[in-house]
Amino acid sequence: NGKPTIATPDGTFSATLHGVMQLDTAKYDQDDRLPAAVTARDLSGGANFRRARIGVDGKVFGNFDYNILFEFGGSGAEDAGRVQELWLQYSGLKPLRFRIGAFAPPLGLEDAASVNGSLFPERPAVADIARGLAGADTRIGGGVIGNGDHWFASAIATGPLVQSLNSGATAFNAPIFDEQQGYALRVAGMPLHGFDWLVHVGANASIVAQPTDLGASAGTRYALQLRERPELRVDGTRLVDTGQIDAKGAQAYGLELAAQKQNLLIQGEYFDISLDRRNPAVGASDPSFNGWYVEGSWVLTGERRKYNIGAAAFDAPGVDKPFDPSNGQWGAWELAARYSTIDLNYAEDSLIAADRVRGGQQDIWTLGVNWFPNPAVKFMLDYYDVSVDRKNTTGAAIGQDYRALNLRSQIAF
Amino acid sequence: NGKPTIATPDGTFSATLHGVMQLDTAKYDQDDRLPAAVTARDLSGGANFRRARIGVDGKVFGNFDYNILFEFGGSGAEDAGRVQELWLQYSGLKPLRFRIGAFAPPLGLEDAASVNGSLFPERPAVADIARGLAGADTRIGGGVIGNGDHWFASAIATGPLVQSLNSGATAFNAPIFDEQQGYALRVAGMPLHGFDWLVHVGANASIVAQPTDLGASAGTRYALQLRERPELRVDGTRLVDTGQIDAKGAQAYGLELAAQKQNLLIQGEYFDISLDRRNPAVGASDPSFNGWYVEGSWVLTGERRKYNIGAAAFDAPGVDKPFDPSNGQWGAWELAARYSTIDLNYAEDSLIAADRVRGGQQDIWTLGVNWFPNPAVKFMLDYYDVSVDRKNTTGAAIGQDYRALNLRSQIAF
Amino acid sequence: NGKPTIATPDGTFSATLHGVMQLDTAKYDQDDRLPAAVTARDLSGGANFRRARIGVDGKVFGNFDYNILFEFGGSGAEDAGRVQELWLQYSGLKPLRFRIGAFAPPLGLEDAASVNGSLFPERPAVADIARGLAGADTRIGGGVIGNGDHWFASAIATGPLVQSLNSGATAFNAPIFDEQQGYALRVAGMPLHGFDWLVHVGANASIVAQPTDLGASAGTRYALQLRERPELRVDGTRLVDTGQIDAKGAQAYGLELAAQKQNLLIQGEYFDISLDRRNPAVGASDPSFNGWYVEGSWVLTGERRKYNIGAAAFDAPGVDKPFDPSNGQWGAWELAARYSTIDLNYAEDSLIAADRVRGGQQDIWTLGVNWFPNPAVKFMLDYYDVSVDRKNTTGAAIGQDYRALNLRSQIAF
Repeated sequence: NGKPTIATPDGTFSATLHGVMQLDTAKYDQDDRLPAAVTARDLSGGANFRRARIGVDGKVFGNFDYNILFEFGGSGAEDAGRVQELWLQYSGLKPLRFRIGAFAPPLGLEDAASVNGSLFPERPAVADIARGLAGADTRIGGGVIGNGDHWFASAIATGPLVQSLNSGATAFNAPIFDEQQGYALRVAGMPLHGFDWLVHVGANASIVAQPTDLGASAGTRYALQLRERPELRVDGTRLVDTGQIDAKGAQAYGLELAAQKQNLLIQGEYFDISLDRRNPAVGASDPSFNGWYVEGSWVLTGERRKYNIGAAAFDAPGVDKPFDPSNGQWGAWELAARYSTIDLNYAEDSLIAADRVRGGQQDIWTLGVNWFPNPAVKFMLDYYDVSVDRKNTTGAAIGQDYRALNLRSQIAF
Repeated sequence: NGKPTIATPDGTFSATLHGVMQLDTAKYDQDDRLPAAVTARDLSGGANFRRARIGVDGKVFGNFDYNILFEFGGSGAEDAGRVQELWLQYSGLKPLRFRIGAFAPPLGLEDAASVNGSLFPERPAVADIARGLAGADTRIGGGVIGNGDHWFASAIATGPLVQSLNSGATAFNAPIFDEQQGYALRVAGMPLHGFDWLVHVGANASIVAQPTDLGASAGTRYALQLRERPELRVDGTRLVDTGQIDAKGAQAYGLELAAQKQNLLIQGEYFDISLDRRNPAVGASDPSFNGWYVEGSWVLTGERRKYNIGAAAFDAPGVDKPFDPSNGQWGAWELAARYSTIDLNYAEDSLIAADRVRGGQQDIWTLGVNWFPNPAVKFMLDYYDVSVDRKNTTGAAIGQDYRALNLRSQIAF
Repeated sequence: NGKPTIATPDGTFSATLHGVMQLDTAKYDQDDRLPAAVTARDLSGGANFRRARIGVDGKVFGNFDYNILFEFGGSGAEDAGRVQELWLQYSGLKPLRFRIGAFAPPLGLEDAASVNGSLFPERPAVADIARGLAGADTRIGGGVIGNGDHWFASAIATGPLVQSLNSGATAFNAPIFDEQQGYALRVAGMPLHGFDWLVHVGANASIVAQPTDLGASAGTRYALQLRERPELRVDGTRLVDTGQIDAKGAQAYGLELAAQKQNLLIQGEYFDISLDRRNPAVGASDPSFNGWYVEGSWVLTGERRKYNIGAAAFDAPGVDKPFDPSNGQWGAWELAARYSTIDLNYAEDSLIAADRVRGGQQDIWTLGVNWFPNPAVKFMLDYYDVSVDRKNTTGAAIGQDYRALNLRSQIAF
C-alpha cells in the first residue's frame, strides 16, 4: 500500500512509519471599519503547519497493537513537540479491541473520520466542541471498541488531555490538581446498504462525571468552557466562547446520519450539550446549547469516499488514476459544501446576569475543491463565509461577518 | 527479536526503530485534616505519560554505534519534546567502548538497569538523588566503558544536562552561565556465580568538581540541591528537599550488592552524599546525607530476571509463555517488594541556623505485581506506603504519611 | 550508501530514516577586566547540542518527493522539539522541481551547503544574516528549483518562519498579526570546469516585500533586525545587533565565487543588505550594510569536497579509507581557514541620532581541523579569534576581542 513497513513474514510483528504534513495558507477578508468592541478585528493570515507528525504503528506478538505518533504542528502556531497518539491495544478477543493510552475516543461521524482524508480542513464547530468535553485528540483513556461487518460500538472511560505547549503561547498552562473523569460512548452502523449505496446512522454520548480541579486559588475551580475556532486555524482565535463556567458535570448527545450513492455523499450530525452548574447563584439555571451541520461531497472523477466500518466513518476517496500528465492521468477531484451552525448563547437576555451565557452564535458556509493527485498527496482549496453574532457583558455586539480563503497542502502516509 | 530493524546482511550497518509508552494512572490516599503547614496536602492523582519515546539506534561502518532517542513524556506533566539519548560510540578497541554525547553514565545497580525492565515504576529515592549529582538521564559527557564476562568498569567525565521544558511548567528555566563539571565512576562484577545463581557486587562514585554557575545575580550562585519525588511521579511535587546550597563541590559514594538464585532476586544499595559549602557562614559545617534500599523479586511463573554484564545490572525476566489464553498461556507474573529510605536532614536541630539542613526523611514501602504478557508489553500494579518526616525553618512539621496506588501500562521495543 | 532505507524494488516508493547529532563543547577565553559596559563579559562555555534530529524523506508514487525532519537541538540551549524540514515536491517535469512547505530557500554557496558536510561549525556571519531576511531554516515557502549538469536556478516566494520555543528561553515569543512576505532568488553554475578542477559563480537576492506585523501595541510594529552570533553558538548571545528598525522592506544581494583543484578549495561570498525605513524621523536615511568572507580547505588525505549541482554547493569530501587502525586506515583529514567580516554600523557617527545604526563590526579568523573517520561521523576542532567593535547609544565601547576553542562531535545519516 505504499507505506514504509518492516514486518515479519507471518505478520506477527510489524512496524509502519508514518509522516504527515498539513500546511495551511490563508487570507482573511474582514470589514475595514469594525467597531472597537469587536473581538479579533485583525485576524492573522499567513501560513501555519496545522499538523506535522512522525510516528510508528504496528503489531507485536500477534494480538497486541500499538500506535506511537508525535505532533509538531498546531493551531495558530506550531506546538512544541507533543504526544498525538500513544496507545496499546489487545485485539485477541474478536470482535473486541481493548485499548489504553492517548487517543480520540469515538464520538461521531466527523470525530471518527481520519484527519488526513477529511472533506474539509476542520471539523464542523459543533462536532468539535462536543468531542472536546470528554474526548478529542490526546485524551487519555481506556475501554473497549468493537465492530462487525455492519455495526460499531465503543465505550471508553476518559481522563485528562496530554498537556502541551504551543510555540505561539503567551503564558504557561494553569496547574491542575485533580484531573477530569468522563465517559465516551458510541453506537453506529449501516442498517441499509446495497451494491453502490449505504445509509449510516449513529448516536453518541459524552459525559463529564468530574471536571478538572484547578485548585482552591483558581478563579473558577472546576471550570468547563465551550469555545471554538471558526473552522480554520491559521489564526488561533476563538470567536465563540462561553467563558469558564463552574460546573459539577456536563453531557453531550449526538445523532449521526449519512447516505452515500456511488460518488455522492451527504452527511449531517446534531449535538445537544448541557452543563450542570456548581453552587449556582440565585436564578442561574443549568445552561444547554446545540448545533448541527450538513455537508456533501461529489467526486467529479467518479471514485467514492470509502466507508470504514472499523471506525464507522468515511475516509478519502480512492484515486483510480494517479497524477501522471504524460499518460493523461489527473488524480481524483472532488467538490464539497457545508453549512455549520453552533449556538453558544443561553438565556442571553435573562434579567438575571448570573443566568446569562453570551457565548455567541456562529454560522459558516464552506465551499471546497479537493484534489488528490494520489492517495498520499492532497490539496484543498476552501472558501469560508463566516457570521458570528455575539454580545459582551455590557450588551455591545462583538461579532462580525467575514470571508476567508485557505489552501491546504498535504502529504500523509 | 521482534524489534523493527533495517540492516545490511553483514551487520556493518544497522538501524533499529524504538518506541516506548509508559502510562501511569495513580490515586493518592492522603489524610483529610492535614495541618495547613504541610507541603502538598492535595497531591494530584490522574494519568500521566511518564515516558513517551521514539528513536533509532544502530551501527555504521562496523565499529561506530549510535543512539538517537527523543522523549515526550515527563514527571508531573509531559515534557515538550527533548533529547533523551544522543550519543556516538567507538567499539573497535575491545573490550573498551568510547562514548560521547548525552547518556546516563553508569552509577549503580538501579541506575544501570533499563527503565523498561525495571522492578518498580521509579528508582529508590537515594539512588535517584545520588545519580542526579553528576549523572542521570540526558547528562552530556564522554568517557570509556568496558566489560568482560564477569567484570564491568566505567569512567565518564560529565557536564550539564540537556535543557528541557515541561508542559506543566509555570516558569522558564534559570539562565546558566558556566556549566557543571563532574565525574562518574563505577566498578562492578559477578565474583561468585554458578549454573543458576550469581552474586553481584559493585561500587560507584560521583564527583561534582565545579557546580553550575547561575550568574552573579542569582540568589545562590553555585547552587546544589538534593531533592526527590516519592518514587511515583503522577504528581511532580518533591516532598524532601534540602533547598539550594551554595557549594564548591559534592561527592557521592555507592555500594551495590545483589544475589540471584533461579527466579528469586534480592538487591540493595547504600549511598553516602556530601556537599562542600562555598563561603560558609560561621558555624556552618559541610553537610552529608545517606540512604539505602533493599528490594526483592519472585517471578511466580519461574522465569528469572536477566543479568546483563554489559551494563552490570538486571533486566526484565524472559517470558516463556507469551499471553495466548486460547493455548493456556498467560505470560510471566512477578511479585516485588521494596523498602527505601533517604535522610536529607543534616544538623537539623543545630543551634546555628546556617548549619541546619532540613530536607526531611522519607521512608517508603512498596509492594508490586508485574505482569509481562510478552517481552514488549508490561503492566505494573504498585501500592505505596510513604512516610515523610520534615520540619520547616520555624520548626513546624510539614511532612505527612500517605498511601498511593499506581497502575503502569507499558509497551516498549 | 549505508542509510537505513525501505523502498519498493522499482523505486516508486521509498523512505529513508535520518538522524543527526551535532554536539559542541566550547571554551571561551575572554579578557578578565572588561569594562562594565561591555556586552557578554562572561560567555557561557560548556556543551550544547547544536543539532539533534530525526526524520524521514523519500518518494511516493514516483514523482512526489517529501522530507519530514524534526529538530531538538538549538543555539545556546536545545529547542523544545520543532519542525526542521517539512515539504512536498513534484519532480515530474524535468529539470524543474516544484516545492511547498518549510525549507531553506537557496540563497548562496554557504546557505546551500549541507550543515552535515560544512567546512566550519557555523556559516560566516554575513551569509547567515543575509539568508535570515527572506530565507533560512524553517522558512515556509513555495516555488521552483531547477538544475542541469552545469547550471542551477531557483525562485521561491517565502512567508514566515515556523515558530519555536528554546529550552533556555526566558520569555514567550511576541504574538504575530500578519506574516512576512518575501522572495528568494538564486542563479549559479559551473562555467569553467575540467577533469579535476572547477570554478563556481553565482548570484542571489533576498527581498522582504512586507515585514511581519507585530501589532498596533508593539514598540516597533514592522520590525526588521539584523543580528548574529559569533560563528559559534554554545553561548547564544549575539554580539552584533542593529536593534529593531521599523521598515517597509529590505533587500540583500549576494555574489558567490569558488574554485576547486583536486583536494584544494577556496570560496568566498559578498553580501550587500539594505533596509527601507517606515515613516523615518527627519534626517534618518535608509541604512545599508555589507560583509564578506573567504575560506579555504585542504584535504590532507587527498580526497576532494564533492560539488553537488543539484544544490550548486560543496559537500563533505569522500572518505577513501574509513577509520580502521588495524588495517592502517585513518579516515579523511582536512585543514580549514576562514576570514569573515560583517559591518552592522550605518552612519554610526551621524549628528542625527535617529539616523545612526550602531550594530557593530565583527571580524573573525577561524582555523580548523576536520576528521572524517567515515562518511557518517565527523569531528571538528576549531580555534576562533573574534574581534567586535561596537558602540552603544551613549558612545561607550561595548565590543571586545576574545578567543574560543570548540570541538564538534557529529554523527549524521
